[in-house]
Amino acid sequence: MRPFFESSLLTDLYQFTMAQSYLKTGVMEEACFEFFVRSLPKDRRYLVCAGLTEVAEFLRTFSFTPEELDFLNTTGLFDRDFLDYLSGLRFNGDLYGVKEGEIVFPHEPICQVVAPLPVAQLMETRIINILHYCVMVASKASRVTQVAPQKTVVDFGLRRAHGGEAGLWAAKATYVAGFSGSSTVLSGKIYGIPIFGTMAHSFVQAHPNELTAFLNFARLYPQRPILLVDTYDTKAGIENAITAQKVLERENIKVFGIRIDSGDLATLSKEARAMLDRAGCGHMKIIVSGDLDEYVIKELEEQGAPIDGYGVGTRITTSSDAPHLNCAYKLVEYGGQKTYKRSTGKATLPGRKQVVRHFRGEDGPFHYDEIVPFDLCERGIIQESPSKRFLLVPHLINGRPKDVKGDTIEEARERHLKGLRGLPTRLLAIDTDNDLTPYDVRIHRDLWEGLEG
Amino acid sequence: MRPFFESSLLTDLYQFTMAQSYLKTGVMEEACFEFFVRSLPKDRRYLVCAGLTEVAEFLRTFSFTPEELDFLNTTGLFDRDFLDYLSGLRFNGDLYGVKEGEIVFPHEPICQVVAPLPVAQLMETRIINILHYCVMVASKASRVTQVAPQKTVVDFGLRRAHGGEAGLWAAKATYVAGFSGSSTVLSGKIYGIPIFGTMAHSFVQAHPNELTAFLNFARLYPQRPILLVDTYDTKAGIENAITAQKVLERENIKVFGIRIDSGDLATLSKEARAMLDRAGCGHMKIIVSGDLDEYVIKELEEQGAPIDGYGVGTRITTSSDAPHLNCAYKLVEYGGQKTYKRSTGKATLPGRKQVVRHFRGEDGPFHYDEIVPFDLCERGIIQESPSKRFLLVPHLINGRPKDVKGDTIEEARERHLKGLRGLPTRLLAIDTDNDLTPYDVRIHRDLWEGLEG
Repeated sequence: MRPFFESSLLTDLYQFTMAQSYLKTGVMEEACFEFFVRSLPKDRRYLVCAGLTEVAEFLRTFSFTPEELDFLNTTGLFDRDFLDYLSGLRFNGDLYGVKEGEIVFPHEPICQVVAPLPVAQLMETRIINILHYCVMVASKASRVTQVAPQKTVVDFGLRRAHGGEAGLWAAKATYVAGFSGSSTVLSGKIYGIPIFGTMAHSFVQAHPNELTAFLNFARLYPQRPILLVDTYDTKAGIENAITAQKVLERENIKVFGIRIDSGDLATLSKEARAMLDRAGCGHMKIIVSGDLDEYVIKELEEQGAPIDGYGVGTRITTSSDAPHLNCAYKLVEYGGQKTYKRSTGKATLPGRKQVVRHFRGEDGPFHYDEIVPFDLCERGIIQESPSKRFLLVPHLINGRPKDVKGDTIEEARERHLKGLRGLPTRLLAIDTDNDLTPYDVRIHRDLWEGLEG
Repeated sequence: MRPFFESSLLTDLYQFTMAQSYLKTGVMEEACFEFFVRSLPKDRRYLVCAGLTEVAEFLRTFSFTPEELDFLNTTGLFDRDFLDYLSGLRFNGDLYGVKEGEIVFPHEPICQVVAPLPVAQLMETRIINILHYCVMVASKASRVTQVAPQKTVVDFGLRRAHGGEAGLWAAKATYVAGFSGSSTVLSGKIYGIPIFGTMAHSFVQAHPNELTAFLNFARLYPQRPILLVDTYDTKAGIENAITAQKVLERENIKVFGIRIDSGDLATLSKEARAMLDRAGCGHMKIIVSGDLDEYVIKELEEQGAPIDGYGVGTRITTSSDAPHLNCAYKLVEYGGQKTYKRSTGKATLPGRKQVVRHFRGEDGPFHYDEIVPFDLCERGIIQESPSKRFLLVPHLINGRPKDVKGDTIEEARERHLKGLRGLPTRLLAIDTDNDLTPYDVRIHRDLWEGLEG
């Protein structure tokens, strides 16, 4: 489960200049940085945690190659002492984080890095790069799961994701958030995600006619053939799919379904269902794709479109209506002292924190969250109970992986579904409603005092 | 210049199922696929080509590892013959493409892949994945260059780019489109892009006070120190930067400038300029950052804000107002025959094409483009001239790299700037104006006939 994109130079230049300065001036004490989201994008009511596994893996394997150090040397900004320091550098601090699939809210730390200041600082850019995208896409995908909870939804988004890494992470984040699988083959290999596929228009075009294309495909993949019917004319395509099924019947092949990738999907799916049923092909499913998102799918579902599965891509893997989150990785403690920042509109709650989720009874629905000083939990002043759980758990201690319970992708998926059931139902609204009361996230009074201090 | 993310499994499952079908049924003739953008996003008037180098490198190095073949085997979809075919597979077809930095328009092919059908098909997902993002970001960044042509603009966008690959490609695409450099260290190593950096709020917070942070930093980096002044209170921060300059003067250190990352940048930059000038620090530059894009920068420039440099990030690297393009990789010829597709709203011009750019006189401004059948150019019926240039040039022939003239990143950058000068000035508008006449892209009559056929 190693992230591919491994280079310690995949960061901002200032991380190195600052780190060297810390080394020179002895600003080397332990620091705590927290990653959190400042506010929810339009229409969102909650966030879904994803990417923690990738962050842990990034920290665990962080190191510099001689080639990377040579490049840093060519910049003329760094001296031998600093490059030597980097060459021996490993992350041996602590990483606390919220488990993947968990539902979180703004201001709640999603991860915490505790390490000597230059080390924790050097990790900033990549940690934001990982969590920003994974949380954003999992949160978007969760909305699709909400509107079509009984349907098969598959991620088709690799091609228009922003680069390969985004495409791969999107397969994982959407799976955690309830999708059935992905078309991205590599996500099957790396994460064990179920992979799916149909056929492309070019496949139909490359054959002398549509029927031949359908027959060739179904004979080769008799387990679950899905035929794309809209290359030339959708209704003629559906007729060809029916004809193909009639021919294949004699060979004991069941066509699994058809895919429609263009046009008015509500009308076409109804017509397709009627045509298929009339022809005795009631077993054939209808899959649709093309510019889908939670808004379109909600409308299709509300119109009672007889659709069995959705292939969603671009709008989910780019989180197209909100392609970035307002998030930060902020220094909250240095050398045992709480730190704070007061830039206009960007104030940060000082001090290391824990997030306590309160439930209405054991295993009950969410009641409220409270962000509390971490040390109150460590000192046992605030404790977990059957109706009260800490969300931040250790992933690395002294650089070593902690065995995080419930850390598989399937468990993350379960956790997300359980979270959706636990959320107050008003927060499951998809559309804009500015009057909606947000989830109750309380801030412990000691943290406010720190802010004023 | 190898892309990092090298796995032949970074693709959609259907590419493999279709390829196996082609192999089984002997649908192995030469195919031509074209990548093009169907329409311009909101407010855009043109596109900037980027990513061709990455596409060429992807094709040139395409191959399967035994581990990848093993994974494909576990899916149960593929037989030994097909896996053997894949294990020996290399791309030995042709790649034609528009040079990076060139300005292009919808419907113009940006690249063409000519190879046996299964090979050309297998390349689809990753080619779209590369070009979609690179073209989108270069096109967005070009608008920033337009509104602040005399200013230093630096890419700070890695942290909120969608994954590491996007961040790296964004550094390149924005540089091609006229940025001065990037904060992404790896882009310096891989592409030779100038890298820049200032300091973070955490750097100031980790010191006992702001002045100490400024002095420590400037003494260590006396060449070009830029001091971040808005951690606590921006005006007090500017005063501290001035004090730092007074102290450092005696050590012969010139503070290069200050950075403001929050607040009302127009007002603050004017106040900062006045404070710096009054204090005899006229040499100190003002750099701003924080949620910038071409719209905000245009307003700042129009208000005469005394800003010397812009650090832009999130909104450019995510192309936030248009985070995806309507683009496609379409089969246009198979076995010497033109192919076409008629899905509602997604029709494709059949046949392989060339793009001919007509200039008003030698080296003059753009006159119009014409999309013409490729074979008319090959047969010499349409020829290049001093006022008429073919945009698609060979990058790979029989899988081997062609020495593409003008293929360095610096040449791409020059080409973009020259393109901006050549464009009709009405197309340099930043804001929405739906009445604006688009650039004149003509379609050769033979292509229309093909479509009707």
